[in-house]
Amino acid sequence: MNKLLKIAVIGGGSSYTPEIIEGFIKRANELPVKEIWLVDIKEGEEKLNIVGKLAQRMIEKAKLDTKVFLTLNRREALKDADFVITQFRVGGLEARLRDEEFPLKYGVIGQETTGPGGFAKALRTIPVILDICKDIEELAPRAWLINFTNPAGIITETISKYTKVKTIGLCNVPITMEMTISKLLEVDKKDIFVEFIGLNHLVWGKRVLLRGEDITERIIKTMLDGSQLNMKNIPDLKWDREFVKNLGMIPCPYHRYYYMSDLLLKEQQSSLSQKGKGSRAQQVMEIEKKLFEIYKDENLDEKPKELEKRGGAYYSDAAVSLISAIYNDKKEIHVVNVKNNGTISFLPDDAIIETNCVVGNNGAVPLIFGDVPKEIVGLINQVKIYESLAIEAGVTGDKDKAVMALVNHPLVLSVEKARKLVDELLNINKQYLPQFK
Amino acid sequence: MNKLLKIAVIGGGSSYTPEIIEGFIKRANELPVKEIWLVDIKEGEEKLNIVGKLAQRMIEKAKLDTKVFLTLNRREALKDADFVITQFRVGGLEARLRDEEFPLKYGVIGQETTGPGGFAKALRTIPVILDICKDIEELAPRAWLINFTNPAGIITETISKYTKVKTIGLCNVPITMEMTISKLLEVDKKDIFVEFIGLNHLVWGKRVLLRGEDITERIIKTMLDGSQLNMKNIPDLKWDREFVKNLGMIPCPYHRYYYMSDLLLKEQQSSLSQKGKGSRAQQVMEIEKKLFEIYKDENLDEKPKELEKRGGAYYSDAAVSLISAIYNDKKEIHVVNVKNNGTISFLPDDAIIETNCVVGNNGAVPLIFGDVPKEIVGLINQVKIYESLAIEAGVTGDKDKAVMALVNHPLVLSVEKARKLVDELLNINKQYLPQFK
Amino acid sequence: MNKLLKIAVIGGGSSYTPEIIEGFIKRANELPVKEIWLVDIKEGEEKLNIVGKLAQRMIEKAKLDTKVFLTLNRREALKDADFVITQFRVGGLEARLRDEEFPLKYGVIGQETTGPGGFAKALRTIPVILDICKDIEELAPRAWLINFTNPAGIITETISKYTKVKTIGLCNVPITMEMTISKLLEVDKKDIFVEFIGLNHLVWGKRVLLRGEDITERIIKTMLDGSQLNMKNIPDLKWDREFVKNLGMIPCPYHRYYYMSDLLLKEQQSSLSQKGKGSRAQQVMEIEKKLFEIYKDENLDEKPKELEKRGGAYYSDAAVSLISAIYNDKKEIHVVNVKNNGTISFLPDDAIIETNCVVGNNGAVPLIFGDVPKEIVGLINQVKIYESLAIEAGVTGDKDKAVMALVNHPLVLSVEKARKLVDELLNINKQYLPQFK
Amino acid sequence: MNKLLKIAVIGGGSSYTPEIIEGFIKRANELPVKEIWLVDIKEGEEKLNIVGKLAQRMIEKAKLDTKVFLTLNRREALKDADFVITQFRVGGLEARLRDEEFPLKYGVIGQETTGPGGFAKALRTIPVILDICKDIEELAPRAWLINFTNPAGIITETISKYTKVKTIGLCNVPITMEMTISKLLEVDKKDIFVEFIGLNHLVWGKRVLLRGEDITERIIKTMLDGSQLNMKNIPDLKWDREFVKNLGMIPCPYHRYYYMSDLLLKEQQSSLSQKGKGSRAQQVMEIEKKLFEIYKDENLDEKPKELEKRGGAYYSDAAVSLISAIYNDKKEIHVVNVKNNGTISFLPDDAIIETNCVVGNNGAVPLIFGDVPKEIVGLINQVKIYESLAIEAGVTGDKDKAVMALVNHPLVLSVEKARKLVDELLNINKQYLPQFK
Repeated sequence: MNKLLKIAVIGGGSSYTPEIIEGFIKRANELPVKEIWLVDIKEGEEKLNIVGKLAQRMIEKAKLDTKVFLTLNRREALKDADFVITQFRVGGLEARLRDEEFPLKYGVIGQETTGPGGFAKALRTIPVILDICKDIEELAPRAWLINFTNPAGIITETISKYTKVKTIGLCNVPITMEMTISKLLEVDKKDIFVEFIGLNHLVWGKRVLLRGEDITERIIKTMLDGSQLNMKNIPDLKWDREFVKNLGMIPCPYHRYYYMSDLLLKEQQSSLSQKGKGSRAQQVMEIEKKLFEIYKDENLDEKPKELEKRGGAYYSDAAVSLISAIYNDKKEIHVVNVKNNGTISFLPDDAIIETNCVVGNNGAVPLIFGDVPKEIVGLINQVKIYESLAIEAGVTGDKDKAVMALVNHPLVLSVEKARKLVDELLNINKQYLPQFK
Repeated sequence: MNKLLKIAVIGGGSSYTPEIIEGFIKRANELPVKEIWLVDIKEGEEKLNIVGKLAQRMIEKAKLDTKVFLTLNRREALKDADFVITQFRVGGLEARLRDEEFPLKYGVIGQETTGPGGFAKALRTIPVILDICKDIEELAPRAWLINFTNPAGIITETISKYTKVKTIGLCNVPITMEMTISKLLEVDKKDIFVEFIGLNHLVWGKRVLLRGEDITERIIKTMLDGSQLNMKNIPDLKWDREFVKNLGMIPCPYHRYYYMSDLLLKEQQSSLSQKGKGSRAQQVMEIEKKLFEIYKDENLDEKPKELEKRGGAYYSDAAVSLISAIYNDKKEIHVVNVKNNGTISFLPDDAIIETNCVVGNNGAVPLIFGDVPKEIVGLINQVKIYESLAIEAGVTGDKDKAVMALVNHPLVLSVEKARKLVDELLNINKQYLPQFK
Repeated sequence: MNKLLKIAVIGGGSSYTPEIIEGFIKRANELPVKEIWLVDIKEGEEKLNIVGKLAQRMIEKAKLDTKVFLTLNRREALKDADFVITQFRVGGLEARLRDEEFPLKYGVIGQETTGPGGFAKALRTIPVILDICKDIEELAPRAWLINFTNPAGIITETISKYTKVKTIGLCNVPITMEMTISKLLEVDKKDIFVEFIGLNHLVWGKRVLLRGEDITERIIKTMLDGSQLNMKNIPDLKWDREFVKNLGMIPCPYHRYYYMSDLLLKEQQSSLSQKGKGSRAQQVMEIEKKLFEIYKDENLDEKPKELEKRGGAYYSDAAVSLISAIYNDKKEIHVVNVKNNGTISFLPDDAIIETNCVVGNNGAVPLIFGDVPKEIVGLINQVKIYESLAIEAGVTGDKDKAVMALVNHPLVLSVEKARKLVDELLNINKQYLPQFK
Repeated sequence: MNKLLKIAVIGGGSSYTPEIIEGFIKRANELPVKEIWLVDIKEGEEKLNIVGKLAQRMIEKAKLDTKVFLTLNRREALKDADFVITQFRVGGLEARLRDEEFPLKYGVIGQETTGPGGFAKALRTIPVILDICKDIEELAPRAWLINFTNPAGIITETISKYTKVKTIGLCNVPITMEMTISKLLEVDKKDIFVEFIGLNHLVWGKRVLLRGEDITERIIKTMLDGSQLNMKNIPDLKWDREFVKNLGMIPCPYHRYYYMSDLLLKEQQSSLSQKGKGSRAQQVMEIEKKLFEIYKDENLDEKPKELEKRGGAYYSDAAVSLISAIYNDKKEIHVVNVKNNGTISFLPDDAIIETNCVVGNNGAVPLIFGDVPKEIVGLINQVKIYESLAIEAGVTGDKDKAVMALVNHPLVLSVEKARKLVDELLNINKQYLPQFK
């Protein structure tokens, strides 16, 4: 148990890194980390240096024995690692900007993880993650890979189907929903329990329990005016309360892309035409620029408050907490992305789903809450079919599979549209899609 | 075996009736029909008289012992019937016209069996069919109900879930596809066998066999330019041949509403604005008017050729052929709407599906061809969930269920749109929707 | 359609061959057979010559153009065959005699297809059938293999899982049950329809329909005194009528081995000790000896009546009738052994089951009758698990798998017994079990 | 959280009660128990007084505020209880003695929870537990019922299917297996994790993890000589190590009744004839007599060591620990009997299974470990079918169902035997089987 740990962070130059470092500092008493390796690619070298030095100053201030290494050599970083965290973004924010814009031309929502935008991101990411996993299989076969990289469901399923790497996919949507609910009730997060069921970015809170009592209906009545159950990157549209009452479950913020697709599309189309407002990617670029200016300050030795604006709250902290649950065999419940194995009876065993799991040194084991309500079975099924075909397209580079994947996406559902979208995304992303050559 | 048969035709005043009569005349040697009761409602009395007299002239010409009765008294018609055929249309063609138009306001396809239009038709039909079934349970408990009435999947499922009436749902889509394929190959229909799987108006030809040899790929290559695989009521849009090749199955004409929804919508919107072209309902009204003028001719004593323009080809003949298969225990293969019972593993046992069945005196028993290809699992699931919720809404008159049903329809997928569509359809159909009061 | 057919009969020297020949003669107008190749192994040469010459005399008498070839060269016989019939018995009746005796030492029933005896037969047969199939794949890849060889379920499943050969497994139990029932009712076999569900030699008549009317209860009441529903090779024990009434289904004769295992065991143990009575194998040896004496008679040119004593009635005729259904694409219902594909929801798709199928030029497609009653789910499951493990043991020659297979057999259910039975059967069959070396 | 608790113990006069009391004393800091009501029937009054007074002395010694009440009035005891523990035995040890003996006459193992003996116990217990549950529904609708009463799987399933009472079934087999394994490895129980899957008294340790590492194979190699993995009431027969290695899972002690049924039967038959040795029930009677002598000692104020000989070790302590996990919402993993809900994919959702669950204030939620190995699917299925039919027989008092249940039990599998066993058990238990009148 007193093995000293080596952590590798792929995409270590990300603006999120200070939160990860803070997570390890906070848990220094339970996680004996000897080395943290921040690794990035050549194009990210400058950022890596800025954020990496901040990380070193943070560790120094905390008077820990941990050493922080900065490197462009991924294999060196992975060698004998105990935990690997992936938070890279292939193509950077420029690619995200394109993901958010190109679908709009064809009357489809532009979003970085959902719809054709998320599909483009998946296709760019799949070859890279498979490459990383090949290295892990060789250099750190016992390591756990905590996957942040979006679309987290698709990427985690790719790892699970095509590699031997032990992985858990992580998203901040469930934890954000729990935090929101506990704030609303003015209770400690430990007093509530939310039964989550669904897929990444398509997860429902099936039941909310307050000290064992089912309060789902009450939550639905009081919290659904949008501002309370949302995330920074999703427009703040109000829910149709009658609908949600009838649904009987708490939708996640991303469900707006399905249940309010037409409204969101209009909103996106109008903000595109309005100069100055810009897409979420553009806003993030601004924030990032400012953040790195702040990070450069040699007197800064803690995570700056400004990082919170960036979105992705709780994310990195959740990752470190997950690492601790594994390392210390806590048998603690986390909501993560994990192999289905029969949890959702109508999905294949090897599909990745998002649900409550017991996490310990044997990984994440799903809890089973019984039947999925009919009202959401169709959507879960359709989206998972899309994801499964998206993975096949991403791994094989088969353009016909790519079209078939988008035809199966509920927001596309048109062969002509799917073909045009695929043509365009292959074109604008071609430098990142070696598999399609 | 030599029991003489009583047949009741509900909606007997329909322009289709001469084809049914012809069907019985053609099969007089195998179906000893003593009485055919054509029954209609007060509003249809005139048509009933016109078409009923033609029917009598046809039977007379054929020199059969069969007697044709015309009545407005449904219970009299049903009493001790051996077979009941339902071909009524609640609200008539005026209601169909509305079904085809109101969804267009909200950017959704207007169609009489698919989408919000088909949903409105289902809601109008459910109370009536349940009422008819109550009579059958009482007056003719051993009768078989051959259900034509659209949306045939939903109506047959309603009968099967909520009544004790023995029923088989019938649609002319599969037989039309088989006829088209055999014409294209210039072979007898008996030499080909198409494995059908799916739902009513959402059925795929999974494999086509020519004398036992799988020729699916060949069919896909040669026949998919639209004109060959279509029906009168669906715009003749060409298929994306690469897509269908990749799908590896023959879509039915109605699949255009899912795979080409955007193109069809544009087409519908433009024809609505172009005077003179009109919706399908308007065209049909014209045809009907002319047909009934022809039927009035007292010298006419056979099914006039003009009926073929009406669409619904093969329909009535298929019904009589089905009746003969049951009566004579033929154990013949027909493609009908039947209880799933595990045929499609991911649907409930009590869902109605459309597939090849062996038909004999114990009804229709499905054949099982193995796994449904992943590419269509999502769509089948989503549409069946919609259908199942539509039935619940139609039976209970619960408006929230109605909204939930449309939210689950792949062509709607928006709570706001669903609510507006439900509001409007309840309003414009209110005289036919007693259950929603 | 007017292709002339080549038939190969493996185990052509069997005493059953005259019935096959008669089957082809009776169907000469629908099956244009050019050549029948009777093939056997060196040890069976004498019998092959005797029965082969009788076959030739029968064909001559019928004045057909068909030529009957006798050969020891299996590859020559298989080359370009259209249908292959397998009716061989590895180790001959001597092996059957051992199969019927060795389990008795350990207090387990001795039977040639059920229990440890059937298991031994399966292990002997698997290497041979795989060898034959390799030849068919090479020399007659389009041929249909009609498999008679017992245990028919296990052997058909082996072919289906480990080769590319198109196969249908055939057993005379269902047809015998249908014949018995129609005789009892004094109706034509065409007027009844029995829904069969289960496995080979473990098949239940779930419902019996007389012209569409469910008469299962009536059949149960009137026919269950044993003499009426039995087969030559199974002791004639009477059924517990209350039990069968409560079961609500017609058991097959072989169910006695499960539902009356203790009584049958006692009966077997006492007949073993009584000289003169002997096992079924010994009786069959006597019959066979006499039959071949009769066959030798050069004046005999038809199937002798004495063959009926042999058991296996309807068997060969059913095989030829099946061949005709395939060749003529009859879409006729036969009860055969076929891939499950979801028909029995709780068994794997690739398990072989015995049920009603539509047979045509695309092979046998199962009908689906809905849920299997709970009362038989456990037994079907347990026996299929045994069969599946038996196949693995037979293919791999893994002794541990063999023990595990018998531990899973409901008649053994003891590790110690299973191990002793496996030790003995491997020992007494060692010349026929190359895979265990 | 600071609600003071009322506990009701049905069968409070049991010799196990001191362990329950000790459990509450040990957990006094986490479980604020105000009242413990020990309730028993008239026939148990003497024992209740003896053990009840010991309980009071134990509480007094521990200086707790808890009050211990003794009563014959069950309704008074249940009124507003927070937790109910059931540990009664209908018919007492005399009935157990009969359960262990009568099956032997028919060549079937005699055991109090498995086979016909367990079946008799189930039939006696079902009417009583349903009666208790009716009281709980009325008097303490929010109470949790911790069910000890054997056969625990059947009784818990009866409660779950036929009442609204919240229940968890508890057995000491899994915890005993965990204790044995951790002792063998000389590690703390917290360092190992056993994935359990199966039914009550038919549960396998699918995998054993030592600090996250799979050591199942190692455990199988080292521990299977019987003495180490056994329980007091099961003869200590050695496992066939090759078999268990091939099985790849740890069988529970009760599996001997299936995998070594013949050996155990011989052992039982010989001990029956050997005077002095006696059945387990007789031994237990002796122990009980001595225990109550000890309990009477007014100086005794703690659980005496002699109780350990009684068997059922860890049982009562596990119950109190379970109560604490619920009350304190610990989200702790316990191995209990719980609704399947899809955990074992081939069993009905409402079947009770035994597996690892997360226990908190919402009860027990199963973890899902993926596929059940084929080698045990048949046995689990067959036994669960038996259990399900046993429940139907116990609830309805339908003798035919009772026969059908035993026919489906792997140890009976004979209609004749089943009928004789049912006749006898109904006869010798008639005073306890009001439902069969």
